[in-house]
Amino acid sequence: MEKHTFEMTLLFDFYGDLLTGKQQEYFDLYYNGDLSLSEIAEADGITRQGVRSVLKRGEDTLTDIEEKTGLVRRFGEQGRVVSDIEMLAEAIVTKTAETETRVLAAQIVQNLQSLKD
Amino acid sequence: MEKHTFEMTLLFDFYGDLLTGKQQEYFDLYYNGDLSLSEIAEADGITRQGVRSVLKRGEDTLTDIEEKTGLVRRFGEQGRVVSDIEMLAEAIVTKTAETETRVLAAQIVQNLQSLKD
Repeated sequence: MEKHTFEMTLLFDFYGDLLTGKQQEYFDLYYNGDLSLSEIAEADGITRQGVRSVLKRGEDTLTDIEEKTGLVRRFGEQGRVVSDIEMLAEAIVTKTAETETRVLAAQIVQNLQSLKD
Repeated sequence: MEKHTFEMTLLFDFYGDLLTGKQQEYFDLYYNGDLSLSEIAEADGITRQGVRSVLKRGEDTLTDIEEKTGLVRRFGEQGRVVSDIEMLAEAIVTKTAETETRVLAAQIVQNLQSLKD
């Protein structure tokens, strides 16, 4: 079982609540807690293959949701645009000699922070 | 059956591809095409109650996904922040006497457009 940690933790962050309770539990242990299949199996009293199967179904569900909605991709693109705008606004704050302009540009930087939460 | 058109078309726009083919078909006719339950029933050769039941399951699924992920709410909040930033950047474009500042602020306005698509 290849471990796609970056992609899966991102998808899990967005869509994790759409998984079953057991899938969420194993996802958290495997991807966030970095436990092995065997360690999860032992802790939960099931086979390693059983753990693998639960995780695989969860991964398939998350991948399917993203393929159909593309929302994580859209949020990622938004993040890049926000970074670009932030650089532009900070350039204005740094370079302008006008007090009012500096205040407006600083408000843009501040507003952008709320998009990053 | 109360018709929550605004909310449902918004949720359908985000999560519609997660519904079954039949749910998508009836949703499109009922919410986008504004056909009545009876008109859809007649066109598809099933009962009015059958149409209602398909739509209700679809509505429940969309509502459940949004309650669990909150992604439509997050996109809505983002839209409000984008509008605020746009007003600030346009104020800079209008008011500044500095050419470089005006170019930077105009680039911010342009970048914001790509978040609206």
